[in-house]
Amino acid sequence: MDLLSIKDPSFLKGMSNQELEVLSQEIRKFLIEKLSVTGGHIGPNLGVVELTIALHKCFDSPNDKFIWDVGHQSYVHKILTGRACDFDTLRQYKGLCGFPKRIESEHDVWETGHSSTSLSAAMGMAIARDLKKENSFVIPIIGDGALTGGMALEALNHIGHEKKNMIVILNDNEMSIAPNVGAINNILGQLRTAGKYQWVKDELELLLKKVPAVGGKLAATAERIKDSLKYLFVSGMFFEEMGFTYLGPVDGHDYEALFENFRYARKTEGPVLLHVITKKGKGFHPAESDTTGTWHGTGPYKMDTGAFVKPAKTPPPAWSSLVSETVRKLAREDERIVAITPAMPVGSKLEGFASEFPERMYDVGIAEQHAATVAAGLATQKMKPFLAIYSTFLQRAYDQVVHDICRQNLNVFIGIDRAGLVGADGETHQGVFDIAFLRHVPNIVLMMPKDENEGQHMVYTALNYDDGPIAMRFPRGNGLGVPMDEKFESIPIGTWEILKEGEDAAILTFGTTIPMALEAADILGKQGISVKVVNARFIKPLDEKMLNQLFFNNIPILTIEEAVLQGGFGSSVLEYAHDKAYYHQAIDRMGIPDQFIEHGDVNSLLEEIGLTTSEVVNRITILARKKQKRA
Amino acid sequence: MDLLSIKDPSFLKGMSNQELEVLSQEIRKFLIEKLSVTGGHIGPNLGVVELTIALHKCFDSPNDKFIWDVGHQSYVHKILTGRACDFDTLRQYKGLCGFPKRIESEHDVWETGHSSTSLSAAMGMAIARDLKKENSFVIPIIGDGALTGGMALEALNHIGHEKKNMIVILNDNEMSIAPNVGAINNILGQLRTAGKYQWVKDELELLLKKVPAVGGKLAATAERIKDSLKYLFVSGMFFEEMGFTYLGPVDGHDYEALFENFRYARKTEGPVLLHVITKKGKGFHPAESDTTGTWHGTGPYKMDTGAFVKPAKTPPPAWSSLVSETVRKLAREDERIVAITPAMPVGSKLEGFASEFPERMYDVGIAEQHAATVAAGLATQKMKPFLAIYSTFLQRAYDQVVHDICRQNLNVFIGIDRAGLVGADGETHQGVFDIAFLRHVPNIVLMMPKDENEGQHMVYTALNYDDGPIAMRFPRGNGLGVPMDEKFESIPIGTWEILKEGEDAAILTFGTTIPMALEAADILGKQGISVKVVNARFIKPLDEKMLNQLFFNNIPILTIEEAVLQGGFGSSVLEYAHDKAYYHQAIDRMGIPDQFIEHGDVNSLLEEIGLTTSEVVNRITILARKKQKRA
Repeated sequence: MDLLSIKDPSFLKGMSNQELEVLSQEIRKFLIEKLSVTGGHIGPNLGVVELTIALHKCFDSPNDKFIWDVGHQSYVHKILTGRACDFDTLRQYKGLCGFPKRIESEHDVWETGHSSTSLSAAMGMAIARDLKKENSFVIPIIGDGALTGGMALEALNHIGHEKKNMIVILNDNEMSIAPNVGAINNILGQLRTAGKYQWVKDELELLLKKVPAVGGKLAATAERIKDSLKYLFVSGMFFEEMGFTYLGPVDGHDYEALFENFRYARKTEGPVLLHVITKKGKGFHPAESDTTGTWHGTGPYKMDTGAFVKPAKTPPPAWSSLVSETVRKLAREDERIVAITPAMPVGSKLEGFASEFPERMYDVGIAEQHAATVAAGLATQKMKPFLAIYSTFLQRAYDQVVHDICRQNLNVFIGIDRAGLVGADGETHQGVFDIAFLRHVPNIVLMMPKDENEGQHMVYTALNYDDGPIAMRFPRGNGLGVPMDEKFESIPIGTWEILKEGEDAAILTFGTTIPMALEAADILGKQGISVKVVNARFIKPLDEKMLNQLFFNNIPILTIEEAVLQGGFGSSVLEYAHDKAYYHQAIDRMGIPDQFIEHGDVNSLLEEIGLTTSEVVNRITILARKKQKRA
Repeated sequence: MDLLSIKDPSFLKGMSNQELEVLSQEIRKFLIEKLSVTGGHIGPNLGVVELTIALHKCFDSPNDKFIWDVGHQSYVHKILTGRACDFDTLRQYKGLCGFPKRIESEHDVWETGHSSTSLSAAMGMAIARDLKKENSFVIPIIGDGALTGGMALEALNHIGHEKKNMIVILNDNEMSIAPNVGAINNILGQLRTAGKYQWVKDELELLLKKVPAVGGKLAATAERIKDSLKYLFVSGMFFEEMGFTYLGPVDGHDYEALFENFRYARKTEGPVLLHVITKKGKGFHPAESDTTGTWHGTGPYKMDTGAFVKPAKTPPPAWSSLVSETVRKLAREDERIVAITPAMPVGSKLEGFASEFPERMYDVGIAEQHAATVAAGLATQKMKPFLAIYSTFLQRAYDQVVHDICRQNLNVFIGIDRAGLVGADGETHQGVFDIAFLRHVPNIVLMMPKDENEGQHMVYTALNYDDGPIAMRFPRGNGLGVPMDEKFESIPIGTWEILKEGEDAAILTFGTTIPMALEAADILGKQGISVKVVNARFIKPLDEKMLNQLFFNNIPILTIEEAVLQGGFGSSVLEYAHDKAYYHQAIDRMGIPDQFIEHGDVNSLLEEIGLTTSEVVNRITILARKKQKRA
């Protein structure tokens, strides 16, 4: 059928299983084709083709509520709800979002991006449904990886207790992005091999009810024997103990099996956990045979070979790689260095470190809070933990950074990856809050390098720093390709670097916005305005000496940051100026305004929010006039 | 014995069980006496007297590491490690901390205050121990309540997988602060009644090993039968499935039983979970018979009757009570209102709401992340969730506030309790970061009332607000006793209120610091300096109209906030002034400096950090001169 003509999922109701099989193949072909051009989360979506179709056939969205955990597996859902025609713009500026988006469709009832939120959201929706006395099914679809996130476990504990009707689909593909870790994963592994669920439970329950009631100590023993028998015949005791009715495991690519289980789940009282086994990348050989997570989310690729489309010339190494490889080099000399990642060994390019120092590398699963506090625990024992974490996911560990790491002033090195705008993943993933949520925390040092050479020196500085927590933020993507020094150097904490001298105004900026500042300074220089450009590589503490000089000489200042303006770096410069009573100091700030920034290529986004060279030129022109007027 | 003479726990090694029993009684008497004067966490500590003594007798602190989760149950540990003499100053300014504190003793290896961090910390310490090839036992002691916190569950998942040696003591008193909720609590309930552990497991394992190995499908079945038998004979399958060796349950007040289990735990490979049943408040009748959490932490009380020492005159209602009771009143008219608390029904004074609207009240356990996202889920269904949460614990839900609530612009009303300095609980509990970590989040409205009458109007405003998330912060303690309006009024969002007119300078402040501002203005008035005092009740958005007038008239401004200065309210005023290019505007800020604030009475703390009337007078005097000089 013509996927582009789909308006809503109602057409599925009348389809035979055979027709559904054909549809699955069409959708797979569509996804493989479209994503070969746009890139996207190909692996997760190929894995849930049948599951998504089956859900839309058996339930009635949007009255029944599908809550896609993480949300990157919602492409099939988007096709079935009338958005196939938008796939050419997937994850592009003003195009189709790669995650569920409520303004796109009434079928998107919950927006995500971060993992493990679906069960809590579903609980809220189930409470609302029951209070409003409505009839609907609330159906969170959560991966086995996301299940290990603390908030998902908090939710399991609460849902199992409250006994609200809810059908949790556990989409078990044995991977999160990288292969999963953790005890729950081991439990799932046992369940996977335990064979197909045999509908024995109802009969067993009936039988057990016939065991005569006994009192006293015997009662407890009888209860134990019952539980034991249940354990013998019924899989999923872990979930049963948590208060769920466990169904499965079921083959997530077998329509009849899915329908049978959905029927059973619909008539079950209380929360159900339906364990569905799917194959990530199903139907596209390169993705299907992927064991490391390479095909989780990709750029463009060749459909026939699965080869990734390479850029015209080889780019410089990725920032993640530069950082992790520098940590690896230093770990050869310093046995105290231990790396910790919450489920991102691939994204954080820690494979090399892991293979060289397997006993000093801990992938703790999707568990940012635990990761941060494991690092704190290591630091209490004089180890040198390197916590590799994305800016947006560090939000999950804010309290652990405050309460466990910074309050105890522990020597943890936090490598804040994907800081700044990340582009296609969009508003749930932009790394733009970290300065504002870290800067006010006592004891922390926060820095950002201008290029990968300074980056390696900062890693060296951080791992030789003994006075408390220290964090380095660095952007998504690749370095600038600058020459690398042979020998590491320590950068004095709280020192900035003058990149270009000038007297009429000064730009204070760091990281990705430095080239913009230098370019603007060039343009301004030709217009007779001489601009000092400062690499303000320490966001905290500030270089007070340099600021004092600027203030003393009354040089107008423009701060630029690829991060939220409110409470950001520029704000800290304002604070310092006013604390020192430099009330006449002209200071202007550029950065990200008070709004969530959607998906799109970073340049379009920067243009939209006015973080551009021409705006720098404008702002400085106005500021420099202030100085001239006053002088 | 003389508890004051204890230097370290080594004296325990030679003591008989009978002597230990005597010591327990002495410690109980000491605690009941001392805490009757100072107040403190009496219930939790009376419950762990024997457990703490037994741990110190059988293990060697500080080589063996005791990690007290939450930490308020560490008083007996403090007595045994030479700090009995400091109990007269417990929780007082410059006195003994109510939580573990590394500068107090080498036996305090981990500092806490927030719940559920101990397992992650222990994992870090166990990794460090093994890498350094040291010999020591790592022993986190965690309550059944804390076990439901997401990060504790993340840690269980990781520890069970990694199989490091660790002895987790599950201190099960069937309560957190209030009675526990959740499926895991139900599991513990079953275990508690399952009878004493019979050392059957070793024999069983041996027996099972003799079952001949079979291949193919039969192997899985044999495995299932083994597991089933294990389930029949062995308690704690939940923890066994999570990868732990489960021991217990054991009576936590029976020395011989504790010693026997410790011996067994010491020689067990891999992680052990020892389930210890204790009685909160043991040995002090009023605390022992408490079922609601009243005796968790208390002020002074009479030793004989257990009556709480009442203040000379009845104080006005507590802020928590004012807020929750107002929500309750509004809930009578608005069926959409649902209250959510993470384990604080008593602290948040939600008992009245709960009894009137049991179906609209959810205590989700210690699970702040889940609580916030349940609220978000409710809001997607047009309900009106009231999320009652302490400022310091909202730190745990920062990402959920950003990613789930604010990003989706959902109508959640967050009641931020215990905002500002909290006093005796100290640096882990000060509610001083919330402005700095919320202000930069798009879409949120953040406000603080000047008194309980304005408070009730703000609650009304919040629950009638339809444009997104709205939060009201309010302090610990009681209201001011002002008269209450009969009828609720809506306060226009983003409007401030002039409390006193003046021309020489203006103070912008809100909440608890308003009386200080008014007092200073009075003093300054007598010195001929006329000061405007503004109730800046909306922290976000600012009252731009009023700010524009102040800036236009070049009136020097002092901002005051009982919250961190960096990125705080004052900082937002600076930002606005510079965004509007009022570069000559004199603005000074008072608030909490860039350091963690320890325990002590609030007045001493305010004095220490210079948040005083006399400092306001000083600052304004200097600022007003600026205006005169310029004029």
